[in-house]
Amino acid sequence: MQGGYGQPRVQGQAAGFEGVGRVVAGNGALAEKLVGQRVAFLGTVTGTWARHALSDAALCIPLHDAVSDADAAALIVNPLTAVALVDRVKTAKSQSFILNAAGSQLGRLILGLARDEGLAAIAVIRRSGVEDDLRDAGADAVLVTSADDFTKSARAAIKAHKPRVLLDAVGDQATADLFFAMPNGTRWVSYGKMSDEAPTLSQMGQFIFMDKHIEGFWLSRWLPSAPPERRTAVVTQVQERFASGKWSTRVAAELPLDSAIDRILPMLATGRGKVMIRP
Amino acid sequence: MQGGYGQPRVQGQAAGFEGVGRVVAGNGALAEKLVGQRVAFLGTVTGTWARHALSDAALCIPLHDAVSDADAAALIVNPLTAVALVDRVKTAKSQSFILNAAGSQLGRLILGLARDEGLAAIAVIRRSGVEDDLRDAGADAVLVTSADDFTKSARAAIKAHKPRVLLDAVGDQATADLFFAMPNGTRWVSYGKMSDEAPTLSQMGQFIFMDKHIEGFWLSRWLPSAPPERRTAVVTQVQERFASGKWSTRVAAELPLDSAIDRILPMLATGRGKVMIRP
Repeated sequence: MQGGYGQPRVQGQAAGFEGVGRVVAGNGALAEKLVGQRVAFLGTVTGTWARHALSDAALCIPLHDAVSDADAAALIVNPLTAVALVDRVKTAKSQSFILNAAGSQLGRLILGLARDEGLAAIAVIRRSGVEDDLRDAGADAVLVTSADDFTKSARAAIKAHKPRVLLDAVGDQATADLFFAMPNGTRWVSYGKMSDEAPTLSQMGQFIFMDKHIEGFWLSRWLPSAPPERRTAVVTQVQERFASGKWSTRVAAELPLDSAIDRILPMLATGRGKVMIRP
Repeated sequence: MQGGYGQPRVQGQAAGFEGVGRVVAGNGALAEKLVGQRVAFLGTVTGTWARHALSDAALCIPLHDAVSDADAAALIVNPLTAVALVDRVKTAKSQSFILNAAGSQLGRLILGLARDEGLAAIAVIRRSGVEDDLRDAGADAVLVTSADDFTKSARAAIKAHKPRVLLDAVGDQATADLFFAMPNGTRWVSYGKMSDEAPTLSQMGQFIFMDKHIEGFWLSRWLPSAPPERRTAVVTQVQERFASGKWSTRVAAELPLDSAIDRILPMLATGRGKVMIRP
């Protein structure tokens, strides 16, 4: 909506990265086969906040009946990001990781997946209140950055779990401080920037002597670079998790398309989950 | 000397990472073969600022007669670092790179090697004065961070050469600013920390959307991890470069061991090159 996530805003063009819908027309062999099917899709040609949208057939995922519309409408961006980020932890051969913005929809997907993969997750949130909720979702430890004992709790959790991956959607100084408190070989994987702070690198020597790294993750780069068989496996896994109820999409509200622009921001601000827009 | 480079200072133990000398005694088959030979060596067991030092035989390099004592005494740390860092540029498939602290002994080795490898080097220095000298040494462009037009010159050099590797021995804000001005896919490779500044990451989004990375290089980690045949090739290449005069070690002074502690710091401060200590 704000043009801040790798795509500029274009006047007169619908917003929306992803959605669910029934294919009404297709051009080309693959697309023609999809006509009539319910699919989750990326709005690769036009935005998805619309009655009709254009997409590449290769980025339309035919859906199992057991996957609800709400889950289907958020089947691609967050779930594939969750799988790719948990993959990143496994590639780093780390048994544990730290995750901030852990109360978000994506955070909860990552926590649930990590638990099933046998990884210990240290969840970081800004304000107290959802600790038990996040432990239920799969967190092994929960840190609250605004708490008085944050530094002490963080040190204890790092000592206990030795996480070598930091999955970061915030990018503030607390994230940098966690990074420098983590063990040899730690990777800071930035995939979002919710904070306006510009973090300071207080321990440059750790890149040299402790083999630390900072890198980024962007689904739009991961998708085309992942091997096709890996993508197929991931899409299957994602649908199975939603169909079986291991994952579910928290929905704060459903809005008609006509009033979405006026009402979506206050709905999102409740923090209760996704807002679904129905044409 | 200050215990700041990955090894603590130990009271009563000699300093010195490397040196040249004749092997007077050896324990084990490999070591016995070296007795009587002039070798460049790493002080892996005791420091090299000494009349006698202990090393691992595997880290003693028998020398060609054409390599001078001065070149041999500095044959390992800087030259191997130069080769490994230029390798890093080639691994990143970048035709160009930025190098700060470019006037140092190591900086000059990198510039000479890069020219012979067909890579364009953008040399960064703090103060004006050695620009022509560095162009002779192999720099395609020279940037002076204290100059009024630094930002403008940096932008022009980046536009012309599109460097995607930043070889950094300084770690200050100017380095971070260069990093964020560099193209998609840039790797910031930290291998030293001459500045006391803690640089600020003003553009976290570039890790995500521009696939940028920060990482470190430490010779002590690279050496054991490099394949043995690569290490042998590198050691041969290094000796050939010194023997042929393509590389040479700038020597500011030669001091007797007895007076080294008192006199070395002012000698190093002249910036005229290495100080050799002779027992």
